[in-house]
Amino acid sequence: MDPAQDSSKVTIADVAREAGVSKGLVSFALNDRPGVSAETRARILQVAGTLGWTPSLRARSLSSKRSFALGFVIARDPEVLGSDPFFTSFIAGVETVLAPEGLALVLSVVPDASTELATYRTLVTDGRVDGVFLSDLRQDDVRIPYLSELGLPAVTLGRPDQLSPFPSVSIDDTNGIRESVRHLAALGHRRIAHVAGSPAMLHGNRRRAAFTAAMRDAGLGDGQVVETDFSISAGADATRRLLRQDQPPTAIVFANDPMAIAGIGVAQELGVSVPDDLSITGFDDIEFARYVYPALTTVGATPMVWGRAAATTLLGLIRTGSADDIELPAARLIIRGSAAAPTSH
Amino acid sequence: MDPAQDSSKVTIADVAREAGVSKGLVSFALNDRPGVSAETRARILQVAGTLGWTPSLRARSLSSKRSFALGFVIARDPEVLGSDPFFTSFIAGVETVLAPEGLALVLSVVPDASTELATYRTLVTDGRVDGVFLSDLRQDDVRIPYLSELGLPAVTLGRPDQLSPFPSVSIDDTNGIRESVRHLAALGHRRIAHVAGSPAMLHGNRRRAAFTAAMRDAGLGDGQVVETDFSISAGADATRRLLRQDQPPTAIVFANDPMAIAGIGVAQELGVSVPDDLSITGFDDIEFARYVYPALTTVGATPMVWGRAAATTLLGLIRTGSADDIELPAARLIIRGSAAAPTSH
Repeated sequence: MDPAQDSSKVTIADVAREAGVSKGLVSFALNDRPGVSAETRARILQVAGTLGWTPSLRARSLSSKRSFALGFVIARDPEVLGSDPFFTSFIAGVETVLAPEGLALVLSVVPDASTELATYRTLVTDGRVDGVFLSDLRQDDVRIPYLSELGLPAVTLGRPDQLSPFPSVSIDDTNGIRESVRHLAALGHRRIAHVAGSPAMLHGNRRRAAFTAAMRDAGLGDGQVVETDFSISAGADATRRLLRQDQPPTAIVFANDPMAIAGIGVAQELGVSVPDDLSITGFDDIEFARYVYPALTTVGATPMVWGRAAATTLLGLIRTGSADDIELPAARLIIRGSAAAPTSH
Repeated sequence: MDPAQDSSKVTIADVAREAGVSKGLVSFALNDRPGVSAETRARILQVAGTLGWTPSLRARSLSSKRSFALGFVIARDPEVLGSDPFFTSFIAGVETVLAPEGLALVLSVVPDASTELATYRTLVTDGRVDGVFLSDLRQDDVRIPYLSELGLPAVTLGRPDQLSPFPSVSIDDTNGIRESVRHLAALGHRRIAHVAGSPAMLHGNRRRAAFTAAMRDAGLGDGQVVETDFSISAGADATRRLLRQDQPPTAIVFANDPMAIAGIGVAQELGVSVPDDLSITGFDDIEFARYVYPALTTVGATPMVWGRAAATTLLGLIRTGSADDIELPAARLIIRGSAAAPTSH
């Protein structure tokens, strides 16, 4: 722990002796090259850490041309971002993979799409990251050909609607929406509305299409849909608009949890009892969902698990040159207290 | 936007001509050196961006020995982190300063204090960051002498309780707690409890001491205090414990908003009406606070403003070698619906 201690005296030979493996294997493990099993790499890193071995970034970069960092560029309004715990949980999941390996995460929050592309270019020009996470996929997303031309490895969160050279880590989120609608229909709801996310984002569109399809399957028509930008305030506004109609819905399926939690608040403020007069479901299962009252019936998208899988996939791609698509177990409905049979209407 | 376009053809002379300034000034601005006004720097960066000028990190680093990134190492359980929007908002505030200047944020979430120190050392050895943000200050914080010996510039969030060579960006959070207690006392509350944060963190201790002092000032004794780790679940447990007593408090002052929101949920679950049977106040003013019901009476700590001020201070320190302490306007109580006069007892 003494920063003045000269840890450069610890050599690869010391680490090899202590770990009981060859110097070559230590070199491979410490330079993060393919061909070393995860267990062996972990053990070698642990021994190296205990001995206080610290390579200089320059030495590592010279031998491997790697920057030992991953990048995450998020193009959202900082205010919106600050209110959506999904990103913090996702990043926490990523860090559970990066931290034990001594890898860093370079984070950029950018205000618009053109700054976004310039930021990716700078990350490449500066050799700052070895790969990036691509979230909030859009229709015909320009970032995919752009990153492909830049030669920057990437993993997409969700499957793009276009040809992509990158592995994806996705979760079937349509299943959870379908289960939500079925659950509400089975409880006896007929007028079910959807507070959708941004139509510019694939997952916003996909959840909306899943809602409409499930409504038709249940013989309930298309169902009323209100579009938002996924922000808490937009979720509150949408709820107010829906509840002030002559024939308000008896249930609302929200495209994310922050909007659903705002929906519970707006309903209570208007004297509409949840779940007696209005049932509400969310999406993501952020931690707040368990602690509001009534506790939120929602779809468990497990952002931390997603972050962990995305980091593992991206590191695999960088180390071996290829990685398979990962399909996480379908997001399932978690039944809590915010949805129940309608009392009247 | 075409990544294949060779932007290296754009020279400093081109930028100077377009911006109507000297080449020397452009060089100073692009190399992020002191002596250029913020306005001029912004204009030059804008022109350089429009023309597609992109320096290589190597060229910039050679001329300035800078890595053009700031670091933020957070030692919290990833799960706890994921549920506290304070950090996301703080980071969003930091990014509003870094993004326009093309600077990156290197983020590490580490599980414990020893990994934390090793991470700082790696950041320095690798030349990955020019400075770091130090949050969640502890008593006699070892990070301060450690970073000082490493020679890594830092800004502390809040004032440490020890000698520190680093500038601090702080906000008087005791004022908000004092206002909360006075507000509740003026409403007629006598049995007021405090759900405190972690005693290992200075701000947890400071808010607790402010609570006790304000209670004595109001002639209400010390007030009951329950310690937590600042997590939502601990906030819920503490509320349950307080409300199940023979003489439960009629008001609870929470050390952060996530715990206060969980407190509202637990009260409703136990059939305790907020604010009629129980008044609740929070701390931070996260966005959720406005959207739960009843809307949370809380203390506005403005984490985005804090992030912005901390980033500006740290950049100033790095560029000029010194920076003054910044004291943000004292956090004030924001009165909403979760606190009212007690109805009985």
